[in-house]
Amino acid sequence: MSAAQQPLRVGLAGLGNVGAGVAKVLMTHAELIGVRAGRPIRLVAVAARDRSKDRGVDLSNLAWEADARALAARPDVDVVVEVIGGIEGIARQTVEAALAAGKHVVTANKALLATHGVALAQAAEKAGVALRWEAAVAGGIPVIKSVGEGLAANRITRLFGVMNGTCNYILTEMERTGRDYADILRDAQALGYAEADPTADVGGFDTAHKLACIAALAFGTKVDFGGVEIEGIERVSLADIRVAAEMGYRIKLLGVARMTAKGLEQRVAPVLVKRHSIIGQLEGATNAVVVEGDFVGQVAHVGRGAGEGPTASAVVADLIDIARGGRLPAFGVPVHRLTAAPRCPSDAHEGPYYLNLLLVDRPGALARIASVLGDCTVSIESMQQQPHDGDGARVLIVTHSCVEADLRRAISRMGALDVCLAQPVALRIESA
Amino acid sequence: MSAAQQPLRVGLAGLGNVGAGVAKVLMTHAELIGVRAGRPIRLVAVAARDRSKDRGVDLSNLAWEADARALAARPDVDVVVEVIGGIEGIARQTVEAALAAGKHVVTANKALLATHGVALAQAAEKAGVALRWEAAVAGGIPVIKSVGEGLAANRITRLFGVMNGTCNYILTEMERTGRDYADILRDAQALGYAEADPTADVGGFDTAHKLACIAALAFGTKVDFGGVEIEGIERVSLADIRVAAEMGYRIKLLGVARMTAKGLEQRVAPVLVKRHSIIGQLEGATNAVVVEGDFVGQVAHVGRGAGEGPTASAVVADLIDIARGGRLPAFGVPVHRLTAAPRCPSDAHEGPYYLNLLLVDRPGALARIASVLGDCTVSIESMQQQPHDGDGARVLIVTHSCVEADLRRAISRMGALDVCLAQPVALRIESA
Repeated sequence: MSAAQQPLRVGLAGLGNVGAGVAKVLMTHAELIGVRAGRPIRLVAVAARDRSKDRGVDLSNLAWEADARALAARPDVDVVVEVIGGIEGIARQTVEAALAAGKHVVTANKALLATHGVALAQAAEKAGVALRWEAAVAGGIPVIKSVGEGLAANRITRLFGVMNGTCNYILTEMERTGRDYADILRDAQALGYAEADPTADVGGFDTAHKLACIAALAFGTKVDFGGVEIEGIERVSLADIRVAAEMGYRIKLLGVARMTAKGLEQRVAPVLVKRHSIIGQLEGATNAVVVEGDFVGQVAHVGRGAGEGPTASAVVADLIDIARGGRLPAFGVPVHRLTAAPRCPSDAHEGPYYLNLLLVDRPGALARIASVLGDCTVSIESMQQQPHDGDGARVLIVTHSCVEADLRRAISRMGALDVCLAQPVALRIESA
Repeated sequence: MSAAQQPLRVGLAGLGNVGAGVAKVLMTHAELIGVRAGRPIRLVAVAARDRSKDRGVDLSNLAWEADARALAARPDVDVVVEVIGGIEGIARQTVEAALAAGKHVVTANKALLATHGVALAQAAEKAGVALRWEAAVAGGIPVIKSVGEGLAANRITRLFGVMNGTCNYILTEMERTGRDYADILRDAQALGYAEADPTADVGGFDTAHKLACIAALAFGTKVDFGGVEIEGIERVSLADIRVAAEMGYRIKLLGVARMTAKGLEQRVAPVLVKRHSIIGQLEGATNAVVVEGDFVGQVAHVGRGAGEGPTASAVVADLIDIARGGRLPAFGVPVHRLTAAPRCPSDAHEGPYYLNLLLVDRPGALARIASVLGDCTVSIESMQQQPHDGDGARVLIVTHSCVEADLRRAISRMGALDVCLAQPVALRIESA
């Protein structure tokens, strides 16, 4: 057996759904994967606390470590798969130990990479090993490969996507059933679609972790999770969803990264997108990531963003790449080439906005609103007044593209007028 | 300068739109590409007949060959980009000469690969060089990378897509304007969206070339262009498009490859897809390829499938891969590992069908049709009769999944009945 045909020996740290999925893929497709990779990929050791639990896959022939850090030190392991999760503690220590021991690492841990990605990439470079993370963003969709390799001939101008299935499920269920956020969230938790503590998902943090990682790869910048503006879906109302739909839009929790003249803009927020765009048509837990390059135009990637099978598919694709000899830097270029892009000030964002206002129903109210907008150089593209619903007059406005600072100024002035019965709702409209 | 930082020296054979685009990308992004590739990628020589033509890019500092085969022999060229086109003649000779001379090859030529792909892959293997063809299928969409690498952990079960922008443009324009095929084709030719001889596009051959190549990669089979059943869009009528729309479908020229128990099924034909599927929503010249894997589920890739920028983006991505050291076999696995899959007999296809029948308007006509279908074990999912249009009674049927042989038998029997006023139209419905 030539050196190139030596098996790649895998240590699997974590045996939750994803870990069990990785074991299943490697065992189910051992032969197929061996042919494609040019050599066998062999699972040799696993680390998890509970050895007795039935995970739907036979792990009895494997070495077993109770501590993942011990797995990372095993001489019979070439690559450590980290699917434990968490920013600090055992996950981080395992990845650090593996890299320090000169082992490749494949991880699905976006929170870890968003926080410590640059340091880990540096450690991998120093050790001359691969640190790969296809599974960390958009699950089974091979979008990291697409951005880092398939579209590498382009300057990426913008990247956006729905990267959290839980949020998209909740928003589409709200629209479909007409039930409110709290109701749907409760159901999603009962069904296992949402965590008992849903903050990471519905608060936008999971999307923000993913966005920070993929933005670094797309723009060649140092991962800057702290530079992501984050707003979750907790305050999205059924009324906004309905009104947006009437106007031809849907509300999606979108992660958007864009390189502007003022710096890197990274935002996670509920925004309006055209119903007939690819993002606007996403149902349930489906993910989609759209990448814009200066030569290629727009490329969209759609698929399952979470779950055992899709995530394991991405982890094993990384293992196959490593077996084939792939040694790309974690963020596409060596760490010393990553730039520290300035953060685009949040109020410098330019684009159209959707405004939902509740006004007193008396002559001149609308004129005063229009005049505030005009004074702040926010111009109106369309406006409609909803049938009177008892509370006041509901007025919906879509603006032309404007600077967010101007819009904020306008909203703050409107709030002070005696014609506004409630705090105005403003959502960005993203051209998707 | 270490060996790894030696520039990759490119010879560009062909200076049509795509060739000029490749030159533009390499020059515009020389620095960016150098950082990503880990070494400079330098265009050193070009081959084209007409040196004086303005191609929108300055090629004056490059070596010039009138004959692409001479380019392939130049000692200062490491990789030859073939964007000449054509199955035989100069394109084939250039690729063969380059491989024989130990040079990597990047090509956008699906017709060449569909016909001689296995032999060329073998020549590349023998020479220890890369033969890459991302640009040959779906233009700028990095779907070859996705199938060959990103989804490599999966057994691919089905792959389908709209891979010819001209056909999709014609079909969507027919629907949008209500004008017939010949009219729209004439306009498309005048606008440069369709060739003077449109056969390769509208006859389905271009899609078939692409399908044969990507199917080989997806299923690990020898390229079998002769095994593709091909039907073009020439006979798609405005009436079928309208009726399909009323039933919630659109007609698309779809390439479908599926591994079945009876062998590899490869088909190009106009089919009905649900309007709300990703394929059903494609407008204009956009391409989409959907890949189904056993662990990942469905992954869709959508983008621009042709044109200077997108195609050049794919060519240069391949160059970056080669500069980074990528040496994957052309079809994912070594040629001796490619299997010769049996061809699934065309009448073994199973699925639902759409039937459009024109019947004499008299009692019992429909009953006789229904009875023929029943006799042939084709069961009806839904049926509707259109308002009488003077010619007879228009009856539209969607069948449950049935075997194509049974359906063909039914159609042949119907044709012989005196109640049918015209040859029945039958189109497959593809679940997309």
